Amino acid sequence: MLTNDILSQWDRENFFHPSTHLGQFARGEGAQRIVTGGEGCHITDRDGNRLLDAFAGLYCVNVGYGRTEISEAIAKQARELAYYHAYAGHGSEASITLAKMVMDRAPDHMARVYFGLGGSDANETNVKLIWYYNNILGRPAKKKIISRWRGYHGSGLMTGSLTGLELFHKKFDLPLTQVIHTEAPYYFRRPDLAMTEADFVAHCVDELEKLIAAEGADTIAAFIGEPVLGTGGIVPPPAGYWEAIQKVLARHDILLVADEVVTGFGRLGSMFGSDHYGMKPDLITIAKGLTSAYAPLSGSIVSSAMWEVLARGTDENGVLGHGWTYSAHPIGAAAGIANLDLIDRLGLVENAGKTGAYLNRAMAVALGDHAHVGDIRGEGMLCAVELVADRETRTFFDASATTGAKVVGAMLKRGVIARAMPQGDILGFAPPLCLTEAEADHIAGVTAEALREVLG
Amino acid sequence: MLTNDILSQWDRENFFHPSTHLGQFARGEGAQRIVTGGEGCHITDRDGNRLLDAFAGLYCVNVGYGRTEISEAIAKQARELAYYHAYAGHGSEASITLAKMVMDRAPDHMARVYFGLGGSDANETNVKLIWYYNNILGRPAKKKIISRWRGYHGSGLMTGSLTGLELFHKKFDLPLTQVIHTEAPYYFRRPDLAMTEADFVAHCVDELEKLIAAEGADTIAAFIGEPVLGTGGIVPPPAGYWEAIQKVLARHDILLVADEVVTGFGRLGSMFGSDHYGMKPDLITIAKGLTSAYAPLSGSIVSSAMWEVLARGTDENGVLGHGWTYSAHPIGAAAGIANLDLIDRLGLVENAGKTGAYLNRAMAVALGDHAHVGDIRGEGMLCAVELVADRETRTFFDASATTGAKVVGAMLKRGVIARAMPQGDILGFAPPLCLTEAEADHIAGVTAEALREVLG
Ligand SMILES: Cc1ncc(COP(=O)(O)O)c(C=O)c1O
Ligand SMILES: Cc1ncc(COP(=O)(O)O)c(C=O)c1O
Repeated sequence: MLTNDILSQWDRENFFHPSTHLGQFARGEGAQRIVTGGEGCHITDRDGNRLLDAFAGLYCVNVGYGRTEISEAIAKQARELAYYHAYAGHGSEASITLAKMVMDRAPDHMARVYFGLGGSDANETNVKLIWYYNNILGRPAKKKIISRWRGYHGSGLMTGSLTGLELFHKKFDLPLTQVIHTEAPYYFRRPDLAMTEADFVAHCVDELEKLIAAEGADTIAAFIGEPVLGTGGIVPPPAGYWEAIQKVLARHDILLVADEVVTGFGRLGSMFGSDHYGMKPDLITIAKGLTSAYAPLSGSIVSSAMWEVLARGTDENGVLGHGWTYSAHPIGAAAGIANLDLIDRLGLVENAGKTGAYLNRAMAVALGDHAHVGDIRGEGMLCAVELVADRETRTFFDASATTGAKVVGAMLKRGVIARAMPQGDILGFAPPLCLTEAEADHIAGVTAEALREVLG
Repeated sequence: MLTNDILSQWDRENFFHPSTHLGQFARGEGAQRIVTGGEGCHITDRDGNRLLDAFAGLYCVNVGYGRTEISEAIAKQARELAYYHAYAGHGSEASITLAKMVMDRAPDHMARVYFGLGGSDANETNVKLIWYYNNILGRPAKKKIISRWRGYHGSGLMTGSLTGLELFHKKFDLPLTQVIHTEAPYYFRRPDLAMTEADFVAHCVDELEKLIAAEGADTIAAFIGEPVLGTGGIVPPPAGYWEAIQKVLARHDILLVADEVVTGFGRLGSMFGSDHYGMKPDLITIAKGLTSAYAPLSGSIVSSAMWEVLARGTDENGVLGHGWTYSAHPIGAAAGIANLDLIDRLGLVENAGKTGAYLNRAMAVALGDHAHVGDIRGEGMLCAVELVADRETRTFFDASATTGAKVVGAMLKRGVIARAMPQGDILGFAPPLCLTEAEADHIAGVTAEALREVLG
């Protein structure tokens, strides 16, 4: 196929791919895949492969591929008005309608939604708003942001700093000094195997208290966290974690940012992770599930208490100097409306809870007694399988063996896409929320086969 | 119209607009406009107004509104494959094709394009790449970025720091310490009225040299600038500016980033501002004109010299830890392909030069001898009219009088959208590149009328 060859060559010669080994890709060594279509939980590529995408793109295609309801909404919006900006009180029917739909779904104490493009820029907006907020309140020193090791909040300079993973810091001079990190709520990797979950929550609280004491609460503006740790390993929090953390934050007047880029709009089986875990955040970050990735759109949902201060800030200082040209882009807004409608209509929040639990059980049955499976965990339509060299002593494989990546490669040969999470040998699963039980069984079966191929 | 009322109320109660006075908007005082459609250089709103948009959205709708070639390309892509990610060597036919088209148009010494979403995140990517580059080269201290006062490079924490405008710094604790600013190449606002253009260029060079000497060249990684200052006042550089600046940068081994978010793809009457002014940048930032805003897409074009180092970096360190979920989004890529095709087919680069010059002349004829017009300047399809209290002494109005905003308001009553630039009383014009001479005449006529209404 000549066309294919040309495209493949154009790709190698012109396209700077994100999160890629640039040298290998340019030399034709690194993997290349040109995706051409999709339907439900499957994608197809230019070489004729049909793959079950058990990671929903980058856990974002929540309603699944090929939904004509969304593509037709995009087409209609493109024909009517592809773009006008949202600065200075401008809007489109789509952006306003979606703002209303988001606020109808958000926790009651939230007041407004700012629309950006991706999760990273939404967190960037959050930090700007937090700094502005404390300046308006006359607390110019209260600015540092606490994040958790293994958190993922984006790939920019500030948002990559919030991210607590080595890949995003190394050689980039990150984290910036305004960001400090505390213990990840990762019970399986607890420092002392003898700790109970309750002990470990107390340990996390203690680490946080110590950090606040060392830095001074009057220098700390906010704490950011994903309801369930995502890219850091797909780790639901130990029982009682969020309740305990929120008590500490309240005592020190530290804002809470719930980064719901992955969990927002149903992935946990609840509309928001904040509902799921009883979190009462001051800011909620949304992206992926907002449009199921059919078009770029993200958001920062602001609480009433915070909104009052921001509005007062503009009364004192005039226009808020913050905006992206493509904030609240009409195409993204139209995709968002159709997507949220579809989630309701298909009952996908409920299915995420139900079939997600089924997937987690299927995985436990298929792999639970494998000698190199240390942990199987999940919540809603999220699941992780963590590999270990030795179960009893919880010894990990050497990173250089890339064991997780090998298993994911063996799965791919069998037509199933899982993700080797970047830090540790962790197989990540985050299928579309429309997954069926048959598909869940298939994923679990293929995972078990691949595991046996690689690890016996 | 009940529907209208409900939308209007939803808007006030739910939607956090960018760059807006939040308090006034929420109270129903600030302006509100719900845009519903557009064609060519005109938009229409829900109240039945039809307006000539002489700022092309936010100087981004370069091909004009209502282009079915682009909306149909978006619709087709949405139906085939709305999304798959571009991480780890994945791509779509659209993203690869657009990469090739961008590189075919970019200056010869450029090697690859990374696709982001908006101009801000593309500049964020640039700074990350610059820091990585100097780390790979073993120059860990060479990291500061020089920007110009009145530059506009985005609204994030780092990119808002690069921006040299008060509105984007005040109350946000910006600029960050990694960014330092030098003189804007703004001849009309030269410190000493007696300076010739050549004197002023020498002054800019001198200021830059002094800054580099004070900070130490070995601490400075890059210099970023728009070929023509945009949001800072729409200011073409004085003759010889870029040549002189580039000599200084070369001498100190400082990278040049050409921020072509406004100038890229034709606005100056050349494909890139870099071609137009003989700049040889290491990185080129693109956004707006890449898709004419029909869908969000931006890019960082990387030079061959820089690419070699980045590729070597991944050979030494593995995968480059940088990516947005929506990098190279297929919908944006499809819009970009159709848009670049259309620009060629309609000869819009040429028209930007020709009709842009016509607009600038028409403006000079209509307003040139007005007592409060201090400067009329432009390049290609960009034009600015700067107002002064007194022409002879070049005295400016007090900012609190908001003179520029009043003139823009008087134009809006007459059905023409111009932009009051944020710092100074500067009327900004950046119409779609398909502007006709009749439309140019109309804009100039309305500007003159509005000026007389406000200033006599
Ligand atoms: C929790 C979380 N926050 C933020 C982001 C960043 O979003 P984006 O890649 O759209 O910038 C991600 C992306 O995976 C994420 O998982
Ligand atoms: C020169 C320049 N760079 C960067 C940006 C930022 O682009 P965005 O608003 O898409 O983030 C702009 C926006 O106006 C710009 O004019």
